[in-house]
Amino acid sequence: MAPRSSTLDGFHRRKVLVTGGLGFIGSNLVRSLVKSGAEVTVVDSLIPEYGGNRRNLAGVRTGLRINISDVRDRHSLPYFVRGQDFLFNLAGQTSHMDSMTDPETDLEINARAQLSILEACRQHNPGIRVVFASTRQLYGRPDYLPVDEKHPLRPADVNGINKLAGEGYHLLYQQVYGIRSTVLRLTNTIGPRMRIKDARQTFVGVWIRQLLAGEPFEVWGGEQLRDFTYVDDAVEAFRLAALSPQAEGRIFNVGGTPPVNLKTLADLLVAVGGGSYRLRRFPDDRKKIDIGDFYADDRLLRETLGWRPRSSLKQALARTLAYYRKEGAYYV
Amino acid sequence: MAPRSSTLDGFHRRKVLVTGGLGFIGSNLVRSLVKSGAEVTVVDSLIPEYGGNRRNLAGVRTGLRINISDVRDRHSLPYFVRGQDFLFNLAGQTSHMDSMTDPETDLEINARAQLSILEACRQHNPGIRVVFASTRQLYGRPDYLPVDEKHPLRPADVNGINKLAGEGYHLLYQQVYGIRSTVLRLTNTIGPRMRIKDARQTFVGVWIRQLLAGEPFEVWGGEQLRDFTYVDDAVEAFRLAALSPQAEGRIFNVGGTPPVNLKTLADLLVAVGGGSYRLRRFPDDRKKIDIGDFYADDRLLRETLGWRPRSSLKQALARTLAYYRKEGAYYV
Repeated sequence: MAPRSSTLDGFHRRKVLVTGGLGFIGSNLVRSLVKSGAEVTVVDSLIPEYGGNRRNLAGVRTGLRINISDVRDRHSLPYFVRGQDFLFNLAGQTSHMDSMTDPETDLEINARAQLSILEACRQHNPGIRVVFASTRQLYGRPDYLPVDEKHPLRPADVNGINKLAGEGYHLLYQQVYGIRSTVLRLTNTIGPRMRIKDARQTFVGVWIRQLLAGEPFEVWGGEQLRDFTYVDDAVEAFRLAALSPQAEGRIFNVGGTPPVNLKTLADLLVAVGGGSYRLRRFPDDRKKIDIGDFYADDRLLRETLGWRPRSSLKQALARTLAYYRKEGAYYV
Repeated sequence: MAPRSSTLDGFHRRKVLVTGGLGFIGSNLVRSLVKSGAEVTVVDSLIPEYGGNRRNLAGVRTGLRINISDVRDRHSLPYFVRGQDFLFNLAGQTSHMDSMTDPETDLEINARAQLSILEACRQHNPGIRVVFASTRQLYGRPDYLPVDEKHPLRPADVNGINKLAGEGYHLLYQQVYGIRSTVLRLTNTIGPRMRIKDARQTFVGVWIRQLLAGEPFEVWGGEQLRDFTYVDDAVEAFRLAALSPQAEGRIFNVGGTPPVNLKTLADLLVAVGGGSYRLRRFPDDRKKIDIGDFYADDRLLRETLGWRPRSSLKQALARTLAYYRKEGAYYV
């Protein structure tokens, strides 16, 4: 992948810490940073239920140090934070259902550990530049569409509440202590290296796993509107955010392709990859924390940072499928 | 104090749990509930830096059980929650400055313990009726005045972020699990039994301590606008919220007297209680987490629950002073 713009050079020989760097978006970001000549340190806990996967950084031979540790381990954080130019803070618990069955673990990772990370920055490296991966989940059920950054915050699950706290700490530590942070609120991100073992990261992962196994995949409901970000476009948003002074202390939605309903998405996936799907009634236990239709208004990101998604939904699905046809064995 | 309305009878012979029940608002609420004939259990940790004080419930001889424990002790919570009709959930860390110097303790009490309390309700008493004491702090610096419940949430300190999470869990557990909760966002509450040892609960406490000691009290800045709730009026808001089905799942600001600036408040206190004060420049370390002018729009509470504050600011100050002239020795 050739650099897309001159801003990419901003990472050449810079020291970068990526929490959750063996995860889906994290590992794609790490690969891009290494290509830019950055010296990258990855901190990842490789908890089996989460997004980390050794395969995600296979073949990266220079400019990379991988450390297996958890962001809840507050004692190791000062060591990792010291001397870094950038921190991409992506480690998180992402499953909405798991946040309801085990709310305290979600709180420990998505809220408490974020405080520890920021305290480590404040005490050991207040000049660091931070980008925090947040989520559309904290908007809850939208009052209007598309959802912009001014939409009321009414999280529909414990995950959304804790991620909101995590964001809040980042913005507060900038305001009070001058630790420069940008918050990116992600929607459904898809692409190579996502978790396909189950739906803990995205339901599209399960669809792809079933499609590759030659089984019909299940579409719940089908009418729900969603927008999707191809992972390379998400990576570009993280890079731009880190390098743009005008992004400091601000929150941006990261959107992407025009919204489609899930049935249309399923048809597109079948058109690209073959296979078939079954429509199924939306399960009751998920309905309670479901947010209904959602798509993001990402004009602020486009206008402020010049971000543009480069991949269509069809391209995104085709590239993702191609990856898992080759690498699928490492992900199931 | 005679019952103010027929709704007060709703607590007769009902079982009520009050966390933070030895604290300022908690103990005034407990006294009022005991007068209504409720069977009250108080859970309070009596941490010296917080609001709990044995004296606050001195002389209450029937209908009251006091248990010294901390809401962070998740193992004892199921026992206390079982069989209760109401839970007034007031235990909290209230100091804005302490939340910045020790953010993790604030998180443990104001966020994590709230999850434990709600989990205990979900598992052991899902029919309980809950009222949660929140704070105006989660609005941050106001965009407009008076601040209504729709104002953007932009907490200006760690305390505000964690209290926002605490609120969020309450509303979510109602939405998902049907545990009926009301959130009250309090502004400056004053009255008998508040902490006067220092400013951890309210700056007015320190003013009163100094006035009683015959020293001039310090007014920082002086131009800031604030509104005040007399504690009996706050207690009435908690009682109404618990007994009103139309309050379930909702958030209400609790306001009170018309706003005054701090200099006017100081003049009024001197007119009522004698003494003198010094104007002092607003300290730099507090400026960073200061929210500027604030006063609440409490029309929703008035219109939905028929709440009315009964005490003027002058009456509130006079009653508070009278209490500490008699009881001050127990609070310094």
